Amino acid sequence: MITTKKEKVKIKSDGHVTSPKGYKAGGVHCGIRKKRLDFGWIHSEVPATAAGVYTLNTFQAAPLKVTKESLEKEMKIQSVIVNSGNANSCTGEQGLKDALEMQKLAAEKFAVQKDYVAVASTGIIGVPLEMEKIKKGIAAINDGLNEDPVNFEEAILTTDTVTKQVAVELEIDGKLITIGGAAKGSGMIHPNMATMLAFITTDAAVEAESLQSALRQTTNQSFNMITVDGDSSTNDMVLLMANGKQDNIPLHEAHPEWNVFLEGLQIVSEHLAKQIARDGEGATKLLEVTVKGAPTDIAARQVAKAVISSNLVKTAVYGADPNWGRIVCAVGYSEQPIDPDKVSVAIGDIAVVKNGLALPFNEDDAKQYMQNEYVQLTVELNNGLHEATAWGCDLTYDYVRINASYRT
Amino acid sequence: MITTKKEKVKIKSDGHVTSPKGYKAGGVHCGIRKKRLDFGWIHSEVPATAAGVYTLNTFQAAPLKVTKESLEKEMKIQSVIVNSGNANSCTGEQGLKDALEMQKLAAEKFAVQKDYVAVASTGIIGVPLEMEKIKKGIAAINDGLNEDPVNFEEAILTTDTVTKQVAVELEIDGKLITIGGAAKGSGMIHPNMATMLAFITTDAAVEAESLQSALRQTTNQSFNMITVDGDSSTNDMVLLMANGKQDNIPLHEAHPEWNVFLEGLQIVSEHLAKQIARDGEGATKLLEVTVKGAPTDIAARQVAKAVISSNLVKTAVYGADPNWGRIVCAVGYSEQPIDPDKVSVAIGDIAVVKNGLALPFNEDDAKQYMQNEYVQLTVELNNGLHEATAWGCDLTYDYVRINASYRT
Repeated sequence: MITTKKEKVKIKSDGHVTSPKGYKAGGVHCGIRKKRLDFGWIHSEVPATAAGVYTLNTFQAAPLKVTKESLEKEMKIQSVIVNSGNANSCTGEQGLKDALEMQKLAAEKFAVQKDYVAVASTGIIGVPLEMEKIKKGIAAINDGLNEDPVNFEEAILTTDTVTKQVAVELEIDGKLITIGGAAKGSGMIHPNMATMLAFITTDAAVEAESLQSALRQTTNQSFNMITVDGDSSTNDMVLLMANGKQDNIPLHEAHPEWNVFLEGLQIVSEHLAKQIARDGEGATKLLEVTVKGAPTDIAARQVAKAVISSNLVKTAVYGADPNWGRIVCAVGYSEQPIDPDKVSVAIGDIAVVKNGLALPFNEDDAKQYMQNEYVQLTVELNNGLHEATAWGCDLTYDYVRINASYRT
Repeated sequence: MITTKKEKVKIKSDGHVTSPKGYKAGGVHCGIRKKRLDFGWIHSEVPATAAGVYTLNTFQAAPLKVTKESLEKEMKIQSVIVNSGNANSCTGEQGLKDALEMQKLAAEKFAVQKDYVAVASTGIIGVPLEMEKIKKGIAAINDGLNEDPVNFEEAILTTDTVTKQVAVELEIDGKLITIGGAAKGSGMIHPNMATMLAFITTDAAVEAESLQSALRQTTNQSFNMITVDGDSSTNDMVLLMANGKQDNIPLHEAHPEWNVFLEGLQIVSEHLAKQIARDGEGATKLLEVTVKGAPTDIAARQVAKAVISSNLVKTAVYGADPNWGRIVCAVGYSEQPIDPDKVSVAIGDIAVVKNGLALPFNEDDAKQYMQNEYVQLTVELNNGLHEATAWGCDLTYDYVRINASYRT
């Protein structure tokens, strides 16, 4: 895991995707959704070195294909446009044409080259985009009225109830580097980034390959460790832009302070990931599961994901029921090498299982702890040195209500 | 898949685990649960050739270990005892002692040798068995008052709302063979048999190895293809007893009519599995997902399981929302070789997706179909010749209610 020496990285109050130097963002209502903002944009003064990670779902939405292909040409992005309300997924040839036209029109609007524009969509699957409305959105970009990172953060939401943003500051080679980010995601969140979008910006100069590996590494320890309902979608993407406006010597993995940049990126990614998990559909609590003593990183992650994804654990957390049997069960079916007689479990600071056996504990204390809005579970496998943390939420009546009538 | 030539196998009206010749069963209230029957037993006049399949959860409950070890000595079982209310799981050395004592006391009561007694427990995890109550149950066996298969079927229930039983008749070598079964299982049901118990009996004579392979084969196409919430437990077991009371020439895989026996066993297993899925915690509907055109059996099963396990599909079924995007998503993240442009989906008889693209369809008709108590989804991968069917249920408010307060 990346150890975050917090003293080197400061979280900015009221941080946004535009906190780093040289970025603007905004959002408008173009009419895909009834009332809410549904079209957002980010623009960098100069082309930014870019990195991306994408959903592993076999069905990839058209905007993902377009963005991935464009980004990989020069590893540069200058502008991003996002619509909510329609995912432009399972829309075939027409969907691909529409995503390409979005990109082309935005490139004209921003006066940048086509391949420097990233496009993203989120919302209902299988319905063609209403391009007239998208065009309205693109035409409205930059009219000053809608330039505000908060508009962007609102425009990308679907069933989210709150906007998600953060920024950090750090110093490298005497330069003040800022990393900012905004994200959306609520239902259908699962490791490998289901229906979630995150956009991270920095004014550092970073070499392209190092930027990509940094994004992979931090995504695996943040966005890929959250789950709301175990479903993964066709549109997920995390984009990272580094526009170099701080004129630092370009960072790379061999740079003595590379870890400071990595820490900053990890903190931004982790903050956004936790905000997404907490805002899971119908959620009332943020659940954090830490697995220690695993033989490998993958084993630690798999066990943590099994526990965080268990409907029975999620409902027990909702009911503040310290039913550790369900935690042990999830550990047991995670298909990882586990010695049942070595497993210990704690709910908050309350040890409930030691070496696979029940410990006497005060149920009322545990119940009271589980009534907190932030519930932490720790599983010690005593079978190695690797550790992982996953984030999720409780499973509530509202999750059922929201998803039993998503479209009606 | 086993093709069931139904004409050769007749489903018996009012069939039970005691429909085959030479079996008795019963159940009593021994006090582990407040009011309901909580201790059940099955007894065969003569030792029966036996086969078993068990949970794959790393944490295996004490009664499983005891039964597995005993059964494997001679592949014979004559008596079965089951308690509900306490799973005797994660109970360490004491749990193992208790399971062994249950077995010993029951062996004395039935006057059979110890290794011919199978023991099973289901209920809360991590709490030591109250052996005084178990002893009361054992002492009450066979007092005539409680000898009734319905008592057994009730005694093994936990959060189940209905008993689950079936029997079929078939003819082999001029002998009328009967296969009967009873099962429990409601929450925590998942492929690989989470918190479910099934006991299948037949009066046929069957060679031990063939019996075991028959049970494995039919379990993979029945009990291992159901899911309620994706969680799997520590106590699951399917036991199959063949006591040979029909004096047939012992059946084996080379017997010309072996498939007729296999068909009978498949029908019994499938009926019990579907009853379990339909009785999933809070369920209002039985969901059946059939995947066709898969490159392998495993791929067909994995895709069917991914769809049947999706919380978003399950809530859409609850809400009768023909939101096929969620079905396509689940197919996409099943991690099986899939060509998105070849996938077709039908809700009942209504085609909604062809070659990865939305088809126009009448939403009201689809909605009306999904209001049925039995909802069928078909996914055609057009990528091979293999097929699999999985069964599950919808995800409802009641699922959350039941599991947010299981113990309180």
